[in-house]
Amino acid sequence: MRMQELKQPSSIEKTQNFLADDIKALENLMLSCFAGVSEDLIQDIASHLLIKGKGKMIRPLLCMLTSKMLGYKGDAHIKLSASIELIHLATLLHDDVIDESDMRRSLPTANVIWGNKASILSGDFFFSKAFKLMVSAGSLASLDVLADTASKMVEGEVKQMLNLQNKTFISQEDYFQVIEYKTAKLFSAACKVAALISQEEYVDTLAEFGHLYGVIYQIQDDTADYFSNSTGKLRGKDFLEGKITLPLIMLQNKVNQTEREVIEKIFENERSQQDLDKVLSLMKKYEILNALEIKVGKLANQAKNLLNNIARSTQAKNLLTDLVNWLAHH
Amino acid sequence: MRMQELKQPSSIEKTQNFLADDIKALENLMLSCFAGVSEDLIQDIASHLLIKGKGKMIRPLLCMLTSKMLGYKGDAHIKLSASIELIHLATLLHDDVIDESDMRRSLPTANVIWGNKASILSGDFFFSKAFKLMVSAGSLASLDVLADTASKMVEGEVKQMLNLQNKTFISQEDYFQVIEYKTAKLFSAACKVAALISQEEYVDTLAEFGHLYGVIYQIQDDTADYFSNSTGKLRGKDFLEGKITLPLIMLQNKVNQTEREVIEKIFENERSQQDLDKVLSLMKKYEILNALEIKVGKLANQAKNLLNNIARSTQAKNLLTDLVNWLAHH
Repeated sequence: MRMQELKQPSSIEKTQNFLADDIKALENLMLSCFAGVSEDLIQDIASHLLIKGKGKMIRPLLCMLTSKMLGYKGDAHIKLSASIELIHLATLLHDDVIDESDMRRSLPTANVIWGNKASILSGDFFFSKAFKLMVSAGSLASLDVLADTASKMVEGEVKQMLNLQNKTFISQEDYFQVIEYKTAKLFSAACKVAALISQEEYVDTLAEFGHLYGVIYQIQDDTADYFSNSTGKLRGKDFLEGKITLPLIMLQNKVNQTEREVIEKIFENERSQQDLDKVLSLMKKYEILNALEIKVGKLANQAKNLLNNIARSTQAKNLLTDLVNWLAHH
Repeated sequence: MRMQELKQPSSIEKTQNFLADDIKALENLMLSCFAGVSEDLIQDIASHLLIKGKGKMIRPLLCMLTSKMLGYKGDAHIKLSASIELIHLATLLHDDVIDESDMRRSLPTANVIWGNKASILSGDFFFSKAFKLMVSAGSLASLDVLADTASKMVEGEVKQMLNLQNKTFISQEDYFQVIEYKTAKLFSAACKVAALISQEEYVDTLAEFGHLYGVIYQIQDDTADYFSNSTGKLRGKDFLEGKITLPLIMLQNKVNQTEREVIEKIFENERSQQDLDKVLSLMKKYEILNALEIKVGKLANQAKNLLNNIARSTQAKNLLTDLVNWLAHH
């Protein structure tokens, strides 16, 4: 992802400092889910994902920061955050099998190291532990949201898989439906459950905030596929796999008829590095990166405006605003 | 399975008649989980499993019958039963990918028809809907039991996968640990949650009853692999795949040194029909079927004795006893 090539931005660091105790508790809680497991294989995969290949845990950060913003004082937000991260990791394990991915977060994927069968089963294990944590949080309303979210995420993955198999050029509308389901729903749930356990009047506002955050997150990820030099993610990976994402859809909507046919032809067969270069030069010609930045900027403003509906003005709220800016500006 | 070759036994029919309204509600509830799904693929797979390839739904029958025995009057037992059946189906979808199975219940498996990717994702979908149903039952204690059960089932599958990869002869103890996790835990949970929502003083007794039922169920399934002519399951399937199950372990504990080495050699490489015939003739020589029947008979008596601890004597209790006899006697 493009964001990985930059120095860790200070808004993430500030958030991590602000939430230091919560993050420690979150990490211990996630590791404790695997402590009593009889099979070393599952423990090895857990270490690979939770320690060696540890990500920014952006979904838990949002859930915990939102909880703080709303003045939540208990510990259910830790349990729910851990649960959300484990759902996320479970889907990564299965997605990497489905997409036949070999690298993630600069490490070989679990399916490469331990095989597809081990990845399928450990994904199921992560998923079951996620539900166990949710139950321990004791909020049936949050359980309901997260069970629904898990279903929708699968629907999004199925949509994406079928789009890929059909080899047809998807519309912008189709694209936004896929990313709403496969990505934004879990971000939305992360913020929604924080409201459910603290101040229910903000449930809809924060669900929408999380949704926008997730949409921007996925657009940035898809943008990075064309415009990043990150080591963690191979540039052009989605392109070479045939995934149609926003940069390409925007391009397709701007090019002339001849160029459009060239692009469509590229997506009918296996794609090469030369094809990627051709598409990149068209993206430069039509200033697609600029168009994407404008789109992201609008969505970021919508997200920040939603936070203005929250009466409190706290450090947590300011950090949440900073996290929107951080995501939108690189 | 061996039981499929016989005429549907009357104790199952009697149970189905007794629970007719509940079964109808259960089926409608399970189908309703897939009604609003945007992807036809998931709906097609759901129809394949819930309608075309519908099984006996033995786990829901146990849950519903146990609830009735304890005088339960609400509808949470339907929701929990549906949830348990969906967890079971989710594991079948994933297991068939992992075992590379091509037939189940006399039909091609979902992975053969729709591919591994679709099976992985629809398994995840079934799993998420199972949790959604559990939440709707409103019993946090039952949710906790079922989340734990789901984890243990995965541990059992991992154990089995590793045993298979290691190609070593497992002990009877290892065998019982695998079947406890991969099979008996869900049967146990089916009976345990029925007690949790109705009469908590019977939780342990019924968890143990369900456990024994599941152990017998798996032994009968493993026995059928050697002694059945069922069309639904290819005889010798587990044997040819290299799965070491109780009939073979019992045989290995009775044969002489020369025979033991022959059997071990057979399991070092791919197995043929001739190998199966050789093992079957040894099983005949050492009366393994008889030894299995004695083992199952003992477990069935333990299970029925547990029911004697339940003060009530109702039709549901009698049917539950009949279901033990039905399972044990063919």
